[in-house]
Amino acid sequence: MKLEELGERGLIARIVRSFQVDPALVPEGAGEDDCAVIDLASVKNGYRYLLVTTDTLQESTHFPRGMTPFQKGWSAVAVNLSDIAAMGGSPFAFLIALGIPAETEASFIDDLVAGIEACASTFQTAVVGGDITRSTELILTGTCLGLTSNPLKRSGARVGDVVCVTGSLGNAALALKLLNDELHVSEQLEAVAKAALFQPQPRIREGFTIAHSGVATSMIDISDGLALSIAEIAKGSSVGVELFEETIPVLSEELRYDEQLKLSPQERTELALYYGGDYELLFTLDRRVLEDAAMMSKLKQEVHMSVIGTIVPSEEGISLRTGEEKERLELRGYQHF
Amino acid sequence: MKLEELGERGLIARIVRSFQVDPALVPEGAGEDDCAVIDLASVKNGYRYLLVTTDTLQESTHFPRGMTPFQKGWSAVAVNLSDIAAMGGSPFAFLIALGIPAETEASFIDDLVAGIEACASTFQTAVVGGDITRSTELILTGTCLGLTSNPLKRSGARVGDVVCVTGSLGNAALALKLLNDELHVSEQLEAVAKAALFQPQPRIREGFTIAHSGVATSMIDISDGLALSIAEIAKGSSVGVELFEETIPVLSEELRYDEQLKLSPQERTELALYYGGDYELLFTLDRRVLEDAAMMSKLKQEVHMSVIGTIVPSEEGISLRTGEEKERLELRGYQHF
Repeated sequence: MKLEELGERGLIARIVRSFQVDPALVPEGAGEDDCAVIDLASVKNGYRYLLVTTDTLQESTHFPRGMTPFQKGWSAVAVNLSDIAAMGGSPFAFLIALGIPAETEASFIDDLVAGIEACASTFQTAVVGGDITRSTELILTGTCLGLTSNPLKRSGARVGDVVCVTGSLGNAALALKLLNDELHVSEQLEAVAKAALFQPQPRIREGFTIAHSGVATSMIDISDGLALSIAEIAKGSSVGVELFEETIPVLSEELRYDEQLKLSPQERTELALYYGGDYELLFTLDRRVLEDAAMMSKLKQEVHMSVIGTIVPSEEGISLRTGEEKERLELRGYQHF
Repeated sequence: MKLEELGERGLIARIVRSFQVDPALVPEGAGEDDCAVIDLASVKNGYRYLLVTTDTLQESTHFPRGMTPFQKGWSAVAVNLSDIAAMGGSPFAFLIALGIPAETEASFIDDLVAGIEACASTFQTAVVGGDITRSTELILTGTCLGLTSNPLKRSGARVGDVVCVTGSLGNAALALKLLNDELHVSEQLEAVAKAALFQPQPRIREGFTIAHSGVATSMIDISDGLALSIAEIAKGSSVGVELFEETIPVLSEELRYDEQLKLSPQERTELALYYGGDYELLFTLDRRVLEDAAMMSKLKQEVHMSVIGTIVPSEEGISLRTGEEKERLELRGYQHF
């Protein structure tokens, strides 16, 4: 069935059925009234700061060929949750403004909405509202609300801090190259890479752990590549950065050691530095953490932390050290304009 | 200068300069970090419920010919504020996700952003964040946050309540007909009608007064025409409605009595019932208010209230009474699908 046959009100009724909320927290949810109503007394939990973020994904720019409607919906939530994670927040509510072409099949919307609900509920977030308009291409604008008592900003890094990252970088970039037939791996490994690109995992738990470690000084998510994200921390904190090429965790372990994958060390580093889509967290820690074996072990285990650099005075700029050589880091990555 | 010359980060820096926020309420505002950070301790003011709403406006669907960039920005905020008004809330924060064609001039964005800031600041609302993507047409998705202690829902109307509306309806519809050359009035009156369509005024103060009157039972804003809005109250409250055609305030006074305007009574009523864009509030009051002269006078004066109908049992459906005649109201208006 096409959406035009369903009508706007029929479509809204069909969509909101999928969103499960706890009426004690959300007395009025999606499709029920002019606004969503959230009971701060129930949800606030002692947190002082409200976090809000909004991010748009659209068919032509953000969705590589081969993504399912479920994965598109999932991603629209994930990219917003990632911004909450990047400040160490706990997300609790999500809104979705859908721009949908008129010829879309109702079953496509069902799958899209299932992806939205799946990602939100995986991270304890209620889908509380939204909007629908007819548009020339699929456009998903999400807004996510979260709470925290100590927001971890981009601006807190100090000279001497160590630069760290969660997980590994470059799987999403590799998937793009596989989709473009620039590289080849086994079907099984292709699926691993595509999962990173098609269904990104926001690092909510990791961000919370880092923000509450007592040793973190700044944080950001890596949505447009490591180079642009480290530049944001450098700018926000008025510092320079030296990254150590050898320690940047490029590709997840299955892919890193695959023999079919013919990539030079430089090509590997490029995957991490200049491509988007990974949604890992980049953060800085007070240098004294290096002497705190218990904390180091906790962070390695719980947030899969790698130490990839150090904060230097701003005059030194942003550089990449490879063995004995040190060169200025190019600041390029994904930009919309 | 074109946006492509400015670059994404240059464009963001240019935009966020325009947004003035109180750092005590908004420690991190637009362009500063992954999320906006709002200090609930400062902003909450004893209110229990958080209100959130999102609404999209786009060039091809929502912006009639002749609208300035300033008015497009203003409208993107106004339609969201109107949803906060419709629950009696006090807005405090706004986010804007911009979809912008690459060939847009930077001066267009300056004017658009000035309109966003002007509407938000007029209604004591801080623009705290947003997003920018490149799109095929101009798309503005706003998200507004508000607070209230007693959200006035669509679902509280009871049999016997009186149905009321703020201000007057139909100016925006008339402006559309003037733009289409279907009708003619003096230049001065054309400007009055166009102001309603091009720069709608969200009824924040009125909504707050109604919600705090102690006699209101339900409320909604009239974005897609009176017929569809009254149908939402009827559905939400499981009641019927009888509207009195003679008392519906069609057109603002300057236009209502203009002799150049050749419109039959029926055509006038149509302007109010079946066209969108007015953003007045539709609400119901406990019938006993009719005997409370002081409250009636207060509401007439402060929210420009007209009594336009009464709530009846749901079996009676939704009807329009004209003199002795009563007929079923057609439920049509603006629909996206």
